[in-house]
Amino acid sequence: MKMIIHIFFILSLVSSISFASVQDFCVADPKGPQSPSGYSCKNPDQVTENDFAFSGLAKAGNTSNIIKAAVTPAFAPAFAGTNGLGVSMARLDLASGGVIPLHTHPGASEVLVVIQGTICAGFISSANKVYLKTLEKGDSMVFPQGLLHFQLNSGKGPALAFVAFGSSSPGLQILSFALFANDLPSELVEATTFLSDEEVKKLKGVLGGTN
Amino acid sequence: MKMIIHIFFILSLVSSISFASVQDFCVADPKGPQSPSGYSCKNPDQVTENDFAFSGLAKAGNTSNIIKAAVTPAFAPAFAGTNGLGVSMARLDLASGGVIPLHTHPGASEVLVVIQGTICAGFISSANKVYLKTLEKGDSMVFPQGLLHFQLNSGKGPALAFVAFGSSSPGLQILSFALFANDLPSELVEATTFLSDEEVKKLKGVLGGTN
Amino acid sequence: MKMIIHIFFILSLVSSISFASVQDFCVADPKGPQSPSGYSCKNPDQVTENDFAFSGLAKAGNTSNIIKAAVTPAFAPAFAGTNGLGVSMARLDLASGGVIPLHTHPGASEVLVVIQGTICAGFISSANKVYLKTLEKGDSMVFPQGLLHFQLNSGKGPALAFVAFGSSSPGLQILSFALFANDLPSELVEATTFLSDEEVKKLKGVLGGTN
Amino acid sequence: MKMIIHIFFILSLVSSISFASVQDFCVADPKGPQSPSGYSCKNPDQVTENDFAFSGLAKAGNTSNIIKAAVTPAFAPAFAGTNGLGVSMARLDLASGGVIPLHTHPGASEVLVVIQGTICAGFISSANKVYLKTLEKGDSMVFPQGLLHFQLNSGKGPALAFVAFGSSSPGLQILSFALFANDLPSELVEATTFLSDEEVKKLKGVLGGTN
Amino acid sequence: MKMIIHIFFILSLVSSISFASVQDFCVADPKGPQSPSGYSCKNPDQVTENDFAFSGLAKAGNTSNIIKAAVTPAFAPAFAGTNGLGVSMARLDLASGGVIPLHTHPGASEVLVVIQGTICAGFISSANKVYLKTLEKGDSMVFPQGLLHFQLNSGKGPALAFVAFGSSSPGLQILSFALFANDLPSELVEATTFLSDEEVKKLKGVLGGTN
Amino acid sequence: MKMIIHIFFILSLVSSISFASVQDFCVADPKGPQSPSGYSCKNPDQVTENDFAFSGLAKAGNTSNIIKAAVTPAFAPAFAGTNGLGVSMARLDLASGGVIPLHTHPGASEVLVVIQGTICAGFISSANKVYLKTLEKGDSMVFPQGLLHFQLNSGKGPALAFVAFGSSSPGLQILSFALFANDLPSELVEATTFLSDEEVKKLKGVLGGTN
Repeated sequence: MKMIIHIFFILSLVSSISFASVQDFCVADPKGPQSPSGYSCKNPDQVTENDFAFSGLAKAGNTSNIIKAAVTPAFAPAFAGTNGLGVSMARLDLASGGVIPLHTHPGASEVLVVIQGTICAGFISSANKVYLKTLEKGDSMVFPQGLLHFQLNSGKGPALAFVAFGSSSPGLQILSFALFANDLPSELVEATTFLSDEEVKKLKGVLGGTN
Repeated sequence: MKMIIHIFFILSLVSSISFASVQDFCVADPKGPQSPSGYSCKNPDQVTENDFAFSGLAKAGNTSNIIKAAVTPAFAPAFAGTNGLGVSMARLDLASGGVIPLHTHPGASEVLVVIQGTICAGFISSANKVYLKTLEKGDSMVFPQGLLHFQLNSGKGPALAFVAFGSSSPGLQILSFALFANDLPSELVEATTFLSDEEVKKLKGVLGGTN
Repeated sequence: MKMIIHIFFILSLVSSISFASVQDFCVADPKGPQSPSGYSCKNPDQVTENDFAFSGLAKAGNTSNIIKAAVTPAFAPAFAGTNGLGVSMARLDLASGGVIPLHTHPGASEVLVVIQGTICAGFISSANKVYLKTLEKGDSMVFPQGLLHFQLNSGKGPALAFVAFGSSSPGLQILSFALFANDLPSELVEATTFLSDEEVKKLKGVLGGTN
Repeated sequence: MKMIIHIFFILSLVSSISFASVQDFCVADPKGPQSPSGYSCKNPDQVTENDFAFSGLAKAGNTSNIIKAAVTPAFAPAFAGTNGLGVSMARLDLASGGVIPLHTHPGASEVLVVIQGTICAGFISSANKVYLKTLEKGDSMVFPQGLLHFQLNSGKGPALAFVAFGSSSPGLQILSFALFANDLPSELVEATTFLSDEEVKKLKGVLGGTN
Repeated sequence: MKMIIHIFFILSLVSSISFASVQDFCVADPKGPQSPSGYSCKNPDQVTENDFAFSGLAKAGNTSNIIKAAVTPAFAPAFAGTNGLGVSMARLDLASGGVIPLHTHPGASEVLVVIQGTICAGFISSANKVYLKTLEKGDSMVFPQGLLHFQLNSGKGPALAFVAFGSSSPGLQILSFALFANDLPSELVEATTFLSDEEVKKLKGVLGGTN
Repeated sequence: MKMIIHIFFILSLVSSISFASVQDFCVADPKGPQSPSGYSCKNPDQVTENDFAFSGLAKAGNTSNIIKAAVTPAFAPAFAGTNGLGVSMARLDLASGGVIPLHTHPGASEVLVVIQGTICAGFISSANKVYLKTLEKGDSMVFPQGLLHFQLNSGKGPALAFVAFGSSSPGLQILSFALFANDLPSELVEATTFLSDEEVKKLKGVLGGTN
């Protein structure tokens, strides 16, 4: 009897003090419509702990490529729980001699921490000033939003770093791919960068661009 | 004839100067998909004045429970017009001896104003400092976002307060419910709070927790 | 001896786990420079519980004026603790026949709750549609950001309401004061509102405007 | 053979370094649900360069109306690519004697630049102060968010201006339309503005209002 | 006598209903400290209409340079009133054959409108796709935040455009200046772009870079 | 002579196309006033690459304390370059048996990645639901803003993790310190948590609280 009254009290309490419609998170439902704020939210009743965990950063990226490097993102929808929460991470693997070429993240600033090896990193400001550092294991560096930056393995063995972004959708624009790995006409590349026709066509050849 | 010309002018004016696609508000449509920014918007043609009004705060919450208190929210979708507008309210009823236990709002700061009675309220900062005030009728207090705080009826009769939030979805996490009213294993509660096994099991019993 | 070791442990813990530079709040220091995000922050060491409390809403505003109404704000710097926290409140007193004339808050949406009396409130959307409600004690209504709205005592006795804003600096522009209580030249008022010269000059006279 | 290996390298690079789910933009899909953050996003595979371009500002608005002026917006969904990007433009055409009547944009500040003619523009602050300027070709002026402002052709010939907004959905509330071009009862207009019954009814007649 | 009473009423009204501390704007005071939200605010008592106006866009920029183009910004602190308001503009002058080289704005999206001439404009997405348009007088185009884009005079005579940004501090990083007009060591440029040593050194020579 | 003309051209270009007042970053100047948006900005002329780098995460925190764990933050002003950029990191060291007790970050969501060892982590939602995961090396997990969460070394050896925050000032409130390591009166702790007087006093003794 006491138990029954007790349960009644608990239930009345829960109904008296809950914010039933509250939205602590919005786990990405990749099948729903997207909005400027991100993916649609999965039905909270179907959300499990697995939506908030991600194992994709555990494995080294494949560095058998011309840059001897790989970037592995931990973003929605693969890492569904990050949707709309304003933070995400990625893993950088740099084989010996590897480089993450000059790139920008249009939508977020970045903090990098070196886990293994030695990385030379830098960014260039709007005022055209260069900020360069050689980072050892445990060192960190911040790259302000939208500015060109790079990371380069300047040590002997492989290097590993994790990077944090202040957005769940930071974006990634790699400069040389933007210039040379699509159908942007060579004469436009040349006119807007001052690069020579020969250089542009050579790099379009290397990186798969046309026109 | 003059009238017809006049109406023509008005119509041409309206078409010349309206921002037809403008979105002043986004009344919650609970049947549509949610996004990180809130509920889907109801078709504006079906929005009425009733979407912007709410009578749910008029009635005292049921305080016949172990905390002798009740929190009544005025949020979307029940108060559909607040969706996405960055503000909401709630009503606190505290019977004699009632208490709103320590809790946080993950997504908003709060301002409280006392309508009736005497309330002792306080919050604890990240620097672990305590800010306590006894508030009489008409007094107000602000609780910064995400910090633990409480309200307690320290007067003789019942107390009533209204609270404002800087979000249409502030969230509410009640500390003792988070610890003792779910299936978080007792040994994890103990390891992460330093509470004794005896205390944890006793409160799990009181508040309906398992494990 | 055990005590000393214990204190050593606590201190080492505190130093191991504190985020020393954290900024939970930014209590307004009205003597420092302001920025687009608000007032400068008072030195946290000098912040007390009084910075987070405010008694200014306890007293009815003076309604002995032509609108038979008063608005009492609870904003920074008077209510210093709200600075930068994205929420604030105000008190509306409406004597019998009182009115808060048509106005906008340029920087925030508003939720109103009636504490006493009967209030007729309404707003007008960008699409020129009118949303009107008569609100009794305990009823609430939301006014989307930046839209013209009003509150009018439509009951027999005095009315009292509290309003919440989703900004610590919502702003307040009262339409008839903007038109008739400053030095905006009459011919500009007339040209931009279609009001007659006679009407404009009469109201400039009533409300103290010049030109 | 070398070519094949090369292509393999490029492909492995692309797969190693792309942020596949990145959302640079969210082109408006007017058929999907809207959210507080804007329109749903069109499938990126169907987005073309035409979604980012808009020719609607090329043509002068029709100024054959009582204000001898026209406002032509460049917003979503007509200018679909601006959805969610926090910026938009509009074109103002003012025939000789034309005026953009007093109005507010509830959701954005505005910068205006004069392309042709002479424009007298002004805004009124919350503190009821008037800021007036006469702008010639090439002059610009900023109007802070949510404040009443106007533009008036004070030159001899027609005037043209472009305006920029810090929102893709700034809103537009024209004061005299809000007061006199809908069904807001005359007695409410009068009570909340101090305008005379005669004036209100006359302007309701001119602008098409009822009640 | 009636006058005196009247003035008393007006004053009591103003004191009853003003939000004295409200901050509609924050005109830049370049002598004060800056914060992440912008410049310090000028004392409102010293703000005049001139703080909200700017004549710097009236004059064509000097296009006697290697790009035959000029960008003239209308930002704080020169255009002091825009500080913190989330919107700004700039003027683009392109002589015959002129080009605004590939660049990004780290902190804002952009809308361009052509005033005179013909402009070929384009941007490249994170997915490496190219969006190109030829824009005639009156045509507009949007460039999403942080993505590489360019504008090029593709007509016969000079071209003029105005651009709007959804930030009062959009930033501007010109690709070839970032690569070739500073002291970023040539070997780092080469390693992070795949450009040849010869090309890099040639362009460093042209654009004034060292190392 | 050609050189001189060339330098003239470069200089005229730079002056024609620079956004002189642009603010890419706001390196923290701890001696200036703070605002709700963060620390004052250091004079850009005095900013060096060292402001964007931080070596404080390289060294393991001291885990000789009752929780056998340490949290080392990388925030402003120590990591001055992160000020206002909306992202930061911290390092978690957990000796065998170590635990980061239940805590919240009032101002940011968090992503954790395990570098070494095995960590059992979990959070509790507003709906009182528990989300628990055991994470091995390379696994990551997201903790939504403001919700109670913990990390516990559930492996045999030491564990190391890095965490990313979507704010440069996430805050940290450790539950048991907030309850038991300050002067919050025991009777208030008891009344607002349901803990027993005995338990509260015992833990106040352990953690250094008074009252």
